[in-house]
Amino acid sequence: MGTNAADLVARTLRGDRRAVARAISLVEDAAPELREIMAGLAPRTGRARFVGLTGSPGVGKSTTTSALVTALRERGESVGVLAVDPSSPFTGGALLGDRVRMQEHATDSGVFIRSMASRGHLGGLSWATPHALRVLDAAGFDVILVETVGVGQAEVDIARHADSTVVLCAPGMGDSVQAAKAGVLEVADVFVVNKADREGARATVRELRQMVSQAERGPDEWRPPIVSTVAASGTGIGELVQRLDEHLAHLRASGELDRRRHARAREEIEAIVLHALRERVGDVHGHAALDKLAGEVAAGSGDPYSAAGTLLAALDQ
Amino acid sequence: MGTNAADLVARTLRGDRRAVARAISLVEDAAPELREIMAGLAPRTGRARFVGLTGSPGVGKSTTTSALVTALRERGESVGVLAVDPSSPFTGGALLGDRVRMQEHATDSGVFIRSMASRGHLGGLSWATPHALRVLDAAGFDVILVETVGVGQAEVDIARHADSTVVLCAPGMGDSVQAAKAGVLEVADVFVVNKADREGARATVRELRQMVSQAERGPDEWRPPIVSTVAASGTGIGELVQRLDEHLAHLRASGELDRRRHARAREEIEAIVLHALRERVGDVHGHAALDKLAGEVAAGSGDPYSAAGTLLAALDQ
Repeated sequence: MGTNAADLVARTLRGDRRAVARAISLVEDAAPELREIMAGLAPRTGRARFVGLTGSPGVGKSTTTSALVTALRERGESVGVLAVDPSSPFTGGALLGDRVRMQEHATDSGVFIRSMASRGHLGGLSWATPHALRVLDAAGFDVILVETVGVGQAEVDIARHADSTVVLCAPGMGDSVQAAKAGVLEVADVFVVNKADREGARATVRELRQMVSQAERGPDEWRPPIVSTVAASGTGIGELVQRLDEHLAHLRASGELDRRRHARAREEIEAIVLHALRERVGDVHGHAALDKLAGEVAAGSGDPYSAAGTLLAALDQ
Repeated sequence: MGTNAADLVARTLRGDRRAVARAISLVEDAAPELREIMAGLAPRTGRARFVGLTGSPGVGKSTTTSALVTALRERGESVGVLAVDPSSPFTGGALLGDRVRMQEHATDSGVFIRSMASRGHLGGLSWATPHALRVLDAAGFDVILVETVGVGQAEVDIARHADSTVVLCAPGMGDSVQAAKAGVLEVADVFVVNKADREGARATVRELRQMVSQAERGPDEWRPPIVSTVAASGTGIGELVQRLDEHLAHLRASGELDRRRHARAREEIEAIVLHALRERVGDVHGHAALDKLAGEVAAGSGDPYSAAGTLLAALDQ
C-alpha cells in the first residue's frame, strides 16, 4: 500500500475526523487509491449498525435525524450521519441548508456529520454510498444514520444499504396511495408520522396502519410499527429508538441481518465490476467513436443496438 | 430478421396498437429479439416530439397529462403516453390507480396509453424508457408524453429523455427550497403550478419566479416560464401547450434539439453496452462465485474491490 493510503487507513481506523472526511471525499471522486483504502478498512467493518431515513421533502427528515442523534448520544453511542442527495448532479453539490439543524451536534466529538454529493460517475450515489458507509463503519461509529432526500428509485436503492429503514410521512403530504406510488412502503421497517401535532396526523396514521395490515407477510415476518413524533420537540423519539432496537433484535434472531448484509456486499461488488468495465469501454474507444455512433443513431441511420455491438466488438480485440 | 420480428416491426410501423403494446412488453422483458426490432424501427424514428412530465406524488400529474392529451387531440395531433413508475420493482408492477383518469381517451384511436414497470434488469426504467419511446416514435405518434412518478434521480434521468420537461408543483406541497432539493429545477423547461385555485398558489408561483430569476443563464438561454393550471377543469392547459410550442421553437432555433437528441443516443448506446457486459460477467462466473465473494466481504475477510478484481480477472481469460 502507498504511504499516503496506509496513513489514511491508520488514521481512519483511529476515528480521526479529518481522515474520515478525506476518505469520503476520495469516495465522492471515485479516486484510484480507493482500492487500497477499502482493502485496508475491510477487516474492521461489519460492526456498525446502519439506519436509513427517507421520505418526501418537507416531512422533517433532518429534524428527525438530529433528534435521533441526540437520543443515541444520551445512551452513549457514537453516531455517524451521512446525508445523501441523489439530485446533486444537477445542483453541483448537495444542498446544505437543512444541515443547520444538525449544528447542535457540531461540537460533539461522538458525532460525525457529512453530506455527500454524486460527482457524476457511474451509478452516482448508489455506487458511492456503500463505500462511504464502510469508511464510517471502519472508523468505529456505533450507529450510522443515512438520510436521503426524496422518494424515488435512487432513494430506495440507498435505503437498501441500511439494516433498518425509517420511512417518514407527515400529515397533508399526500395520502397513502401516493406514498405507495413512491415505492418506499416495501422498504419501510419503521414508519414515522412526524409533525404529529398537526391536523390530519391521525388520518395519516390510520391510513398507514391499514396499509401495513393489508400487506401480505408470513407469521414470523416483521410488521412495520408506526411511530408518531414531533421531532422538533423530541416527542416520540424515545419510542422510535425502541422500535429500531426491536427491529434490530428481529433481524438478528431471524438471520435476516446476515442475509441483508450479504446482499449488500453482492451489490457493492457488482457495482465495482461494472464501473471498471465501463472505464474499459471508454479506454478502448475514446469519446470520438461513441459520438460518431450517437450521431448516426440520432439521425435514424443507425440503431443503438448495432452501435453497442460495434463498441463491444472492439473491446474484445 | 426473424419472421416474427419482421412482422412485429412492420405492424408497429403501421401504428398497429397491439403490435406497439407487444413491442413495449418486449422492452420491459429486455427480450433478445429487441436487437432486431430496434434495428428495424430505427430508420423511422426521430420524428416525434417528446414531452416529459414530472413532480411529487399528489401534484396532479395524471390529470394534467390527460388534459394535455385532450388539448393536443383538439388540434389533430396523435399522442402516445408512457407512464413510468421507477418504484415498480418493489410493487411488482406500476400502480395503475391513476390511469383511470386517462380512461376518457381509451376509445380514441389517436391516443395510445401505456404504463411501464421495470422488471429488475440492469438500469431498470432508465434503460427501458428510451427503447419504449423509440417504439412509440416509430409507430408515428406526433407527440409522446412521458409521465414519471416521484422526483428522485431516476425521474430526473427519465426526464432527460424528453425534448421538453414539465415540472409540476402544487400549493402546499413544500416550499421552493424543497423543490430545489428534489433536483428537478435544473431539468425544468416549463413549470406548472397546478391546483392554482387552492390557497397558497400565488406564493408558490412567486417562489418559483424568484428561483428562476436567480438562476444563472446566458442571454440566449431559455428561461422556464411558470404556468398556473387547474388541470381538472382544463384551466391553463392552452397556455401550457403554447409555452411548450415556444420551447420547441427555441430548441430548434438554438440547435439545442439536436444536441439533446445526440446526448440521448449516446446514453442509450452506453446503457446497452453496460447491459451486455454485465451479462457477460454473469455468464463467466455464475452466481456461486459472486455469492462466495459477497460472503467474504460481508464477513470482513474480503473487500469489495479485491472481490471485483477476482471477477474481472476471470472475465479476461
